[in-house]
Amino acid sequence: MIRDLTDDEARRGLVLKWGTTDPDVIPAWVAEMDYALAPPVAAALHDAIEAGITGYPRFETEGGVLGEAYAGWASRQFGHRVDPEQVVPVVDVTAGVRVALDVLSEPGPMVMPGPAYSPQLDVAQVTGRERVDLLLDPDAPRAEIDLDSLDQAFADGARTLLLTQPHNPWGRVFTRTELEGIRDVVVRHGARVISDEIHAPLVLAGAEHVPYLSIEGTADHAVAVVAASKAFNTAGLRCAQIVSADTATHRRLTDVPMVRNDSWSPLGVIAAVAAYTDGDAWLDALRVRLSSQRDLLARLLAQHLPEARMRPLEATYLAWIDLRAYGHDDPAAVALERGRVQLAAGHDYQPGLTGHVRLNIATSPERLTEIVHRLATALTPGTTSNS
Amino acid sequence: MIRDLTDDEARRGLVLKWGTTDPDVIPAWVAEMDYALAPPVAAALHDAIEAGITGYPRFETEGGVLGEAYAGWASRQFGHRVDPEQVVPVVDVTAGVRVALDVLSEPGPMVMPGPAYSPQLDVAQVTGRERVDLLLDPDAPRAEIDLDSLDQAFADGARTLLLTQPHNPWGRVFTRTELEGIRDVVVRHGARVISDEIHAPLVLAGAEHVPYLSIEGTADHAVAVVAASKAFNTAGLRCAQIVSADTATHRRLTDVPMVRNDSWSPLGVIAAVAAYTDGDAWLDALRVRLSSQRDLLARLLAQHLPEARMRPLEATYLAWIDLRAYGHDDPAAVALERGRVQLAAGHDYQPGLTGHVRLNIATSPERLTEIVHRLATALTPGTTSNS
Repeated sequence: MIRDLTDDEARRGLVLKWGTTDPDVIPAWVAEMDYALAPPVAAALHDAIEAGITGYPRFETEGGVLGEAYAGWASRQFGHRVDPEQVVPVVDVTAGVRVALDVLSEPGPMVMPGPAYSPQLDVAQVTGRERVDLLLDPDAPRAEIDLDSLDQAFADGARTLLLTQPHNPWGRVFTRTELEGIRDVVVRHGARVISDEIHAPLVLAGAEHVPYLSIEGTADHAVAVVAASKAFNTAGLRCAQIVSADTATHRRLTDVPMVRNDSWSPLGVIAAVAAYTDGDAWLDALRVRLSSQRDLLARLLAQHLPEARMRPLEATYLAWIDLRAYGHDDPAAVALERGRVQLAAGHDYQPGLTGHVRLNIATSPERLTEIVHRLATALTPGTTSNS
Repeated sequence: MIRDLTDDEARRGLVLKWGTTDPDVIPAWVAEMDYALAPPVAAALHDAIEAGITGYPRFETEGGVLGEAYAGWASRQFGHRVDPEQVVPVVDVTAGVRVALDVLSEPGPMVMPGPAYSPQLDVAQVTGRERVDLLLDPDAPRAEIDLDSLDQAFADGARTLLLTQPHNPWGRVFTRTELEGIRDVVVRHGARVISDEIHAPLVLAGAEHVPYLSIEGTADHAVAVVAASKAFNTAGLRCAQIVSADTATHRRLTDVPMVRNDSWSPLGVIAAVAAYTDGDAWLDALRVRLSSQRDLLARLLAQHLPEARMRPLEATYLAWIDLRAYGHDDPAAVALERGRVQLAAGHDYQPGLTGHVRLNIATSPERLTEIVHRLATALTPGTTSNS
């Protein structure tokens, strides 16, 4: 059910990931998958182009179709009850975070656990806020949000937590207990949460996504920003959603001037509705594939880069790998130059961090094997990588 | 070459304009055309969906393809030389205006000639600026920007002019002399211009578009925001462009954090490149059609609504009609209720303005005829509209 793109297909379709590297480079950086579109999404897009749906999207009405589709999805996938009326389209998740900050949050600083998704490192600043980093200790055995530090950040004046869950690039799926702990700290300070849940559909075998809004006592202080685009490879179609669970919050989001939020595309709406309505079976197959890629990566690293350190990858197809043992400040640069494989550099996610990379496993087993071989050869010249 | 959509096709394709009205209503409000896509644009979109181009767009590289295409277009269409390197993609024109204001303009108020495109009435405010209106006298024989008032606004502290040219909803194409007059006032105050030229391709028979950046002495104080989307009916595909003519300005625009400007779609880029590269012949045919629709509207109004007043429509397919003589504060509401035709209300473009409508003529001659018949019947009940 998951069809691997050939190199030629990937170069034609994934114009950023594959289209901007040299032909001899294997790209494993930006968060896109080397798989063909889910058939229901592809069919819906074909029909839309055939019908000439290239103009303005609907406002409330289309939000209604989208809200119904997302509510059905959230119920089936996460056992989470969403009010279809409280799903607001937005052009993409990062824009949704920006809108939510602008519209809902007091002006105080925003807390951001890091390393973090790089474009969002600037979102506090563009809304006129400071960013307070809660940085993970690279040596921590488990990637967790430190509640004492969070408490201190709020005590010092922060008013919003940007929660990314499942977390990219940590690969963590926060448990209900962890989320309740976060909620308690937030409530104590009367602060807000923006929960970026774009990776929620990409929870791998062994973990379960708990929507932050499904935790009791979060409705009046939180919104979730969600999208089908990461799990269904449609980031360029431009439609994410802000979900609220509180009518006052919803009203604040919809009362904004259009210029704050009117850039989503009707094709993004159509792709999201198709994915949320008819995408379950394909997503199941995707999760099986990605879980198997994750296990393959662990075996490959054990064999070829035994000093690489990787915490369990519970969600996303983006492995966060500690390569400090190999002695390079910027192993991604070394991998590109010597190995002709393009990874994302750890310092993009945490400025100043050395020795880390983010590796995209959403490809074929053959490519993933080749990626690790090349990485091993690049980082350990002189030794021979045996497969 | 211009193919009229059937009602069914229009309802399927134009999901906002046609998809949100009752089936017995003829929609003539939002700025979309009831015509099939230009064949080169439709073909490019088909190929893109076939290839699965649904992911992230390229950054500079894709900007390069787009810049080359736009520069060729500007040269052929307007005799205007654009540096392909100085064309920056952005999700849509209003978002481009917002980015330009945020990044380039000092914090002082923004001057906006009105009545004005309604979503942009809020753009100053969301960037933390005041808006200063330069309102047209509804009785003025010609729609002009009053240079004395502009001078005064700058003297009072305004720092930016949002110039819309060709102007929507005025329907004006400003002449070189008028633009030079504006430039002189702007330069005197060291102010900036953001020139929204989305309607530039839609200049009708008898007028000629002069890009603001083609006026001497504007390069260091102005950018243009342009798009193929209005002339080629692809507003939902999400790609406009900010054009600069000064490397320092360009650098300021591209040095912004991604979160300020990274939401354009690769399909928008592809549609724009196809339109700019292969759209000339179709656009010629479109302008012939729209010019003929304009002339038809004038005849229909003279016959059925002789007291309607309309300045010459030099560009756009959006006629601004003064219906005050018929005695309704909100003639658009009357037209919808009694005539089952949906026009845009004048007060959307200038809060408080009564008696005006904006009527979209980009449809078939038959529909335009029916629209005016219905409007006449609605505004002058008791009389019989003769065709």
